[in-house]
Amino acid sequence: MFSIVILGAGNVATHMFQAFQASGNCSVVQVYNHRPESLKAFEKLTATTTELSELIEADMYLLCLKDDVIESIAEQIQTKSGIIAHTSGSQSILRSSNSAVFYPLQTFSKGSKLNYSEIPFCLEANSEENLQILKTIASCISPEVFEISSAQRQTLHLAAVFVCNFTNHLYAIGESICKEDDMPFDILKALIQETSAKVQINPPSEVQTGPAIRKDESTIKRHLSQLKDQNHKEIYQLLTQSIKQKHDKL
Amino acid sequence: MFSIVILGAGNVATHMFQAFQASGNCSVVQVYNHRPESLKAFEKLTATTTELSELIEADMYLLCLKDDVIESIAEQIQTKSGIIAHTSGSQSILRSSNSAVFYPLQTFSKGSKLNYSEIPFCLEANSEENLQILKTIASCISPEVFEISSAQRQTLHLAAVFVCNFTNHLYAIGESICKEDDMPFDILKALIQETSAKVQINPPSEVQTGPAIRKDESTIKRHLSQLKDQNHKEIYQLLTQSIKQKHDKL
Repeated sequence: MFSIVILGAGNVATHMFQAFQASGNCSVVQVYNHRPESLKAFEKLTATTTELSELIEADMYLLCLKDDVIESIAEQIQTKSGIIAHTSGSQSILRSSNSAVFYPLQTFSKGSKLNYSEIPFCLEANSEENLQILKTIASCISPEVFEISSAQRQTLHLAAVFVCNFTNHLYAIGESICKEDDMPFDILKALIQETSAKVQINPPSEVQTGPAIRKDESTIKRHLSQLKDQNHKEIYQLLTQSIKQKHDKL
Repeated sequence: MFSIVILGAGNVATHMFQAFQASGNCSVVQVYNHRPESLKAFEKLTATTTELSELIEADMYLLCLKDDVIESIAEQIQTKSGIIAHTSGSQSILRSSNSAVFYPLQTFSKGSKLNYSEIPFCLEANSEENLQILKTIASCISPEVFEISSAQRQTLHLAAVFVCNFTNHLYAIGESICKEDDMPFDILKALIQETSAKVQINPPSEVQTGPAIRKDESTIKRHLSQLKDQNHKEIYQLLTQSIKQKHDKL
């Protein structure tokens, strides 16, 4: 059984807590947060503390914290013998020998239920021994375990902005286009689901559809004339041009 | 039992054929295509023909054809007493009294299995009587049946370009970013799935995440410096700016 202390109480901390407790082979023995009110949800489930000086011994200290405080918190607990791993997609691994990265490549929202066994974990450590421990711990949650360097992780984080954050914004644009013409966003949900399902089994570049790849200029022209929002018009033009260019090259 | 003749043999025709045959209450009595080789997949399953003059009587003629031939084919079969419905998202309803629209709002690929009961059908007819027949036929496949005007349908088609075609292109950009740094696209799949699952239960504008909505300028700056492809850089800038503007207004 691996013992884990989680530092932080936000979405990532909450989901990691649930994933470890459900794993059977890992136990979250303590949760730290500097604000006592954020610890309420954890109090009945495990030990909690608002003081770094009160952290107990554990195999891993998991820093589910904002990027700008990771380094300072890690420094304050550096004397602990366990691995000190952060969960950030963009922060490099710290220098001390027990530093590591335990990055779950997923979008976490409070309240949304996740299948933890499908989360890819991107791991990095400053020693082969610690890397093996991290792999064993991550494997308790998910079979999707990858050894990823800090440079690669920053690339992944960038790719995630495109496929998650920007994609969600396109959904929001679809929502506002529907609303302007008195239609519910619901009508687009099956299409959204299927578009994401398709690329689970096909490379996205091979399943591109729509007026841009067909070079259907009359539809493109009509769509541009339909768009009232100048921002949406520019996004339509730029993405249409990008699809055309990509598939000219292929 | 409703009898249906399908005109066309592409992805939409193939999926509509399967959906009707599985429905129990509708039967595809004939499939037409001008190219005999395209009919091979249907020959063992129903009657087929390459001649419009040989079309048999049916309750509905479903035109699963390219936009630019819909009108001419519809004119050639106008003497039929059944409803003549096309499946296009962008073509207006034709003028003749038996013209109609039977638009499945979904992305169809050969080979991908779909849950037909989740496809929203957008219907339009030139008479109340025909609209009721269309509703009954569509309900055999899916409970998601909407009466949608030609103008609304064109709006929907535009919204679909954003949430399906453009989204798939963002997946393709994610794929190429991963590949440049020797990582498999597989690593992004769980994130893509969850991003689409989230908006099945939440409005997309309420679940936006990422550096743009957080106004995390240092991450945005680093991401822009990481992007090598000028097109990808422009897309990153425009979508980041659009997310910021949208959430400033909210």
